Amino acid sequence: MTATILDGRATAKTLRGEINDAVAEFKEKTGVTPTIAVVRAGEDPGSVWYANAIKKTMTKRGMEAQLHVLPETAPQEKLVALVSKLSADPNIHGIMVQEPMPKGIDEGAVKAALSPDKDVDGVHEVNAGRLTMVAPAGRPEGVGPFFTPATPAGGMEILRRHGVELSGKHAVVVGRSNIVGKPMALMMMRENATVTMCHSRTADLAAVCRQADILCAAVGRPEMIRGDWIKPGAVVIDFGVNDVEGKMVGDVAYDEAVEVAGMITPVPGGTGPMTNIMLVKNVLEAARRQVTK
Amino acid sequence: MTATILDGRATAKTLRGEINDAVAEFKEKTGVTPTIAVVRAGEDPGSVWYANAIKKTMTKRGMEAQLHVLPETAPQEKLVALVSKLSADPNIHGIMVQEPMPKGIDEGAVKAALSPDKDVDGVHEVNAGRLTMVAPAGRPEGVGPFFTPATPAGGMEILRRHGVELSGKHAVVVGRSNIVGKPMALMMMRENATVTMCHSRTADLAAVCRQADILCAAVGRPEMIRGDWIKPGAVVIDFGVNDVEGKMVGDVAYDEAVEVAGMITPVPGGTGPMTNIMLVKNVLEAARRQVTK
Repeated sequence: MTATILDGRATAKTLRGEINDAVAEFKEKTGVTPTIAVVRAGEDPGSVWYANAIKKTMTKRGMEAQLHVLPETAPQEKLVALVSKLSADPNIHGIMVQEPMPKGIDEGAVKAALSPDKDVDGVHEVNAGRLTMVAPAGRPEGVGPFFTPATPAGGMEILRRHGVELSGKHAVVVGRSNIVGKPMALMMMRENATVTMCHSRTADLAAVCRQADILCAAVGRPEMIRGDWIKPGAVVIDFGVNDVEGKMVGDVAYDEAVEVAGMITPVPGGTGPMTNIMLVKNVLEAARRQVTK
Repeated sequence: MTATILDGRATAKTLRGEINDAVAEFKEKTGVTPTIAVVRAGEDPGSVWYANAIKKTMTKRGMEAQLHVLPETAPQEKLVALVSKLSADPNIHGIMVQEPMPKGIDEGAVKAALSPDKDVDGVHEVNAGRLTMVAPAGRPEGVGPFFTPATPAGGMEILRRHGVELSGKHAVVVGRSNIVGKPMALMMMRENATVTMCHSRTADLAAVCRQADILCAAVGRPEMIRGDWIKPGAVVIDFGVNDVEGKMVGDVAYDEAVEVAGMITPVPGGTGPMTNIMLVKNVLEAARRQVTK
């Protein structure tokens, strides 16, 4: 058996088309251009690349992306002041503060200056708190509106658009970062999956993974999850983006896994292409919430 | 084999002694009496009972508890205004707003008026967010100070004081409420347990429970968890408080479980007696944070 490939590029393309239409409609109705401010101190190459990618994706949708770049030596107060100013600016609907921040900067202080309503990257503690406290799908949410980090939101979107049922299924998440593993676990539990959260201290990780109907890898170790860790027919979502001698490799040993799994996201071309467009989707949603206020 | 009984009454007694000393020391050093304001609208019998129990426990420790009771018909603005006033009052260190609130009151709006720094009951989204985002034990926390709900905090305290190692163990939590199940899962993951979160939609719950080294029940269904759901030697923490014909019964079938488990909390006398004193501990901690500011 060979797994169905969950094609993130194709899913992202579909989503881009839908967002093009939604942005056009929003602009016609309100006269407002959904706008993100991307804030950075320094020139970390990954951050530079990602900021430019966001700008390109936003512009193509008829949205605006402002890049605010401070020198790497900028004092913390300047970064905080910039984020505060943008948080108060009614023409800015979403804000992303790029990490890593320069050494000596207290990331917590910078995030505290960020309005949760504009936190389209889902890194603010208020947004994490609401995701944690939100009621299961189908019931009144019981919390205010919130944003989730773009990468796991992209994984959820792939599952949804491929008709993967989560309710009552056993989902296993390997990795407990605040930007992928934990929010992915909480989002799947919200959809009524039974969720096991694994990490570096998990005993007999292979055996735990073998129980998964849906297996999510977000651990940052190339090909750590082997084919014989996967239950035949399982759905595998690989969030890994590891550079192995210039080649991008996931956390799952793809060539082995594809023979066992029922569905699998490839790397590259799986969860990766979704992140960018999910962030853009959040910017549109932020603009909707703020403009109709 | 018969399980070791995890005696919550004895553990709570030890803790009360420690807190007596800590309060005396704090008062001598600062001249400040740690104070909680318990806010309620209406006369829900459970709430009346709990407020009086808190007052008694606080007073015995040399701390102060103010009861603020509005009529059940009080408009939402009045409740919000009261909570805002208490949040701004430097003589109040902790605030608990009792639930259930009267019909028609938006609990979210009331909670929004509550200062997260005084949220000794751990119900504010900022505190939930910090618990979700805090780094694993032993690393820099990466978030600001926070409070966790008293009931699961009491369960953690019982585990700690009985030398139950969590790191690398498989913990299963049955129930996903915001005041017990979810925070308990997050707190155990923080201590490096592998955690499975179960709920009403979990398939073959018995089989999942049977994997648990530490099994936590917080589901509100009398004796739902049977003896043969428990792995021999497992640690069982029962948060259930169910009234069955006037008798208090847990979520675990105790008479069966005690023959299989390695350690177990009885009901009553297990997690129940801990809740009250954990709240008091949070009030002292809140006073410490605010007075040394």
